[in-house]
Amino acid sequence: SRRGFSTKPQPESSTQANISLSNKQRLFMTDPVSPGSIFFLPHGTRLFNKLVSFMKNQQARYGFEEIITPLIYKTQLWEQSGHWENYKDDMFKVQGFNKSRDEDESGLHEYGLKPMNCPGHCIVYSQFDRSYQELPVRFSDFSSLHRNEASGALSGLTRVRRFHQDDGHIFCTMDQINHEIANTIKLIKDTYKVFGVAEKNDITYYLSTRPEQYLGDISTWERAESRLKESLDKSVGSEKWSVREGDGAFYGPKIDVLLQDAFGKKHQVGTVQLDFQLPSRFDLKFVSNDGSRSNRPIMIHRAIFGSLERFIAILMDQYQGKWPFWINPRQAMIIPVNESHVEPARKLQKQLQGDILNENVPISPITGYNFYVDLDDRNETVGNRIKDAIQKSYSYILMLGDKDIEKGTVAIRSRDNRKIENLTPTEIYEKFIKLEKTFQ
Amino acid sequence: SRRGFSTKPQPESSTQANISLSNKQRLFMTDPVSPGSIFFLPHGTRLFNKLVSFMKNQQARYGFEEIITPLIYKTQLWEQSGHWENYKDDMFKVQGFNKSRDEDESGLHEYGLKPMNCPGHCIVYSQFDRSYQELPVRFSDFSSLHRNEASGALSGLTRVRRFHQDDGHIFCTMDQINHEIANTIKLIKDTYKVFGVAEKNDITYYLSTRPEQYLGDISTWERAESRLKESLDKSVGSEKWSVREGDGAFYGPKIDVLLQDAFGKKHQVGTVQLDFQLPSRFDLKFVSNDGSRSNRPIMIHRAIFGSLERFIAILMDQYQGKWPFWINPRQAMIIPVNESHVEPARKLQKQLQGDILNENVPISPITGYNFYVDLDDRNETVGNRIKDAIQKSYSYILMLGDKDIEKGTVAIRSRDNRKIENLTPTEIYEKFIKLEKTFQ
Ligand SMILES: [Zn+2]
Ligand SMILES: [Zn+2]
Repeated sequence: SRRGFSTKPQPESSTQANISLSNKQRLFMTDPVSPGSIFFLPHGTRLFNKLVSFMKNQQARYGFEEIITPLIYKTQLWEQSGHWENYKDDMFKVQGFNKSRDEDESGLHEYGLKPMNCPGHCIVYSQFDRSYQELPVRFSDFSSLHRNEASGALSGLTRVRRFHQDDGHIFCTMDQINHEIANTIKLIKDTYKVFGVAEKNDITYYLSTRPEQYLGDISTWERAESRLKESLDKSVGSEKWSVREGDGAFYGPKIDVLLQDAFGKKHQVGTVQLDFQLPSRFDLKFVSNDGSRSNRPIMIHRAIFGSLERFIAILMDQYQGKWPFWINPRQAMIIPVNESHVEPARKLQKQLQGDILNENVPISPITGYNFYVDLDDRNETVGNRIKDAIQKSYSYILMLGDKDIEKGTVAIRSRDNRKIENLTPTEIYEKFIKLEKTFQ
Repeated sequence: SRRGFSTKPQPESSTQANISLSNKQRLFMTDPVSPGSIFFLPHGTRLFNKLVSFMKNQQARYGFEEIITPLIYKTQLWEQSGHWENYKDDMFKVQGFNKSRDEDESGLHEYGLKPMNCPGHCIVYSQFDRSYQELPVRFSDFSSLHRNEASGALSGLTRVRRFHQDDGHIFCTMDQINHEIANTIKLIKDTYKVFGVAEKNDITYYLSTRPEQYLGDISTWERAESRLKESLDKSVGSEKWSVREGDGAFYGPKIDVLLQDAFGKKHQVGTVQLDFQLPSRFDLKFVSNDGSRSNRPIMIHRAIFGSLERFIAILMDQYQGKWPFWINPRQAMIIPVNESHVEPARKLQKQLQGDILNENVPISPITGYNFYVDLDDRNETVGNRIKDAIQKSYSYILMLGDKDIEKGTVAIRSRDNRKIENLTPTEIYEKFIKLEKTFQ
């Protein structure tokens, strides 16, 4: 292997443990050609995509509409948003190598590579006349984001230069704020429960208040902070949160949700931020029910996973590589007992992989249930192949021999239990569907 | 509307027609803050995501593994790949605003924003020892790509600075080339058939040969060109393709597949490129069955849609806004006859939207069938609401009145046919699933 992570038998931090697990399961890699940017390998990409699919469905439930927005924006946008004065040091600048290509009306040749989606979402909001009847307008976006972290601070999946958020912005009226914040905190709790992280690691809630560098006036900040306090008292309980003075975003105060990793280190995941500044800087408006056109919406920034990269790191800690079936990039391994069982084993594999792998149609359908099922037909003992599949953390091991083929069944066992059941392929497929539907 | 496209009643080009349709259906927008980068609005994002889902499933069929790779790479990578000498003018450079953040071992502060995925895929290939048994290794990637097109050349969705490809790279042996190229051309044909574009617009196949700026030696180029000629003769027919002299990529010759739009203009979509240069520049290797470690794989670059943005433009031409059901971002509109029918109408909507909108579970499942179904309960005549839904190009209109509610049915008609059927909600859901599965 040309470039390798150094693996250590006794990890001393979550990052070391993650890298060691990633090496074992081939989940992700990094390379000096792009420090702080993760390469997700095929099995890591499966995990990443599963989290994205999961969250897209939750967001649809809560009325979010996904949009795709540019990655580079002319300097003027960052001046308008306030990032230029308050965030420039954390950003990358972009320019054409050949400047003559870029002779726009604006005359400006310099872009910023986006560290956040918010200004782009303001542009989309302001493209159309918005009526009070449309509010809340909720946009979601899974774009790549870049922040120029100091090279010494880079660490595994938790401190990176390129990352992805399950980002969302809500544009709403003052009356709608509390409901939207409560919904966000509910989704945060429900989501963490699915991944079992809330049981093992405590969730910590902070209210992060006005930082040294901030936009707007103090009374607006105080109003926003008291709104967030109310919401925390109601959704979380007055005893269960604390204040981080001066830790808010430059455009507004925020609720930060932190999870603790196996080594006791806390990581920021979810966030809810209240923002009166960007709507004013982008002159966002809506038409109220009395027909007046100059009403200003409030903007809520929120994320549930936060950085997907960091959330995956927390899940690696949480599961120690023993991924639950529904999220496992290696869901089942089929082991034909000997060569004569390879053909039926292949047939079983296709059936469990689902319709998208069906070669009887020229084109695969878009939806349906498809599972990651591999086949190990190496010339090794069944015992060795089972051991190998368990080491690779396949959730289920399916064995096919003469007896089972005669009865039309498959011998199935889980990663953690030697007990063998004999089920038909259809029963196994139904079992897998149920596991996926119930997040097991 | 703050910024608007100018709409013209008589479009004179595909671009004008697209922009006018996009305005009507709210599919995408552009803004001077990021010239050449498309903002996909919610309904355009639905189209975009559907195409991506479609292609991910086809790629899984053909043995591709999706990976996620960085967007910015240090200059040294572009020097190694040859982009530095041959492609720099088309690229954007990236630097931290605060240079002290970037004190890497390399000492280099400058990145290039990727115009292609290939060098990143070479890095992933070279991370592990590869055996001949693993080949072909096939990576797919839907990353954002940036090319610094001259500002005067920018046009709608077809000539942009930021775009996405259904990109894929195959690393294989010389013996495997023909099979892989034939598979790619088969998938191109099967895919275009699904979208009906091959019927209306002719497909044109070109062999694009060695350009003025090229890497490697002429004999390697000639060998690669003759391989592509053989494949074209076999898959397409010797009469059905022609040569574009000097139009190859700098690293190798290619087959370009073009589709004609409604205004007679041809657009490049699919591509198959044969490359002996990058494997050598990145020193890619595999272990052969005799154990020798210095074997060089060949690299095939291929895309089916090509640029997703451009393919969407071609589909806009093709369907003139009358999207077939399976890809329509507006699949059905429910019209309750009067106020008393709004409650059952909402129930029907939830049922057709599928499990992800089911509020009876705290968390929505990941897979299953979900359709884009809206409800129009405005205080307007049924006739006006039907007219409006047809204008917005909903595929189906579902009407709910006393009679149907009594019988437990729904009155359903299509966009193009006044004929009304009375079906149960379950029958409609099944009908929709069938339409989606068969790409209608
Ligand atoms: Zn934001
Ligand atoms: Zn390529």
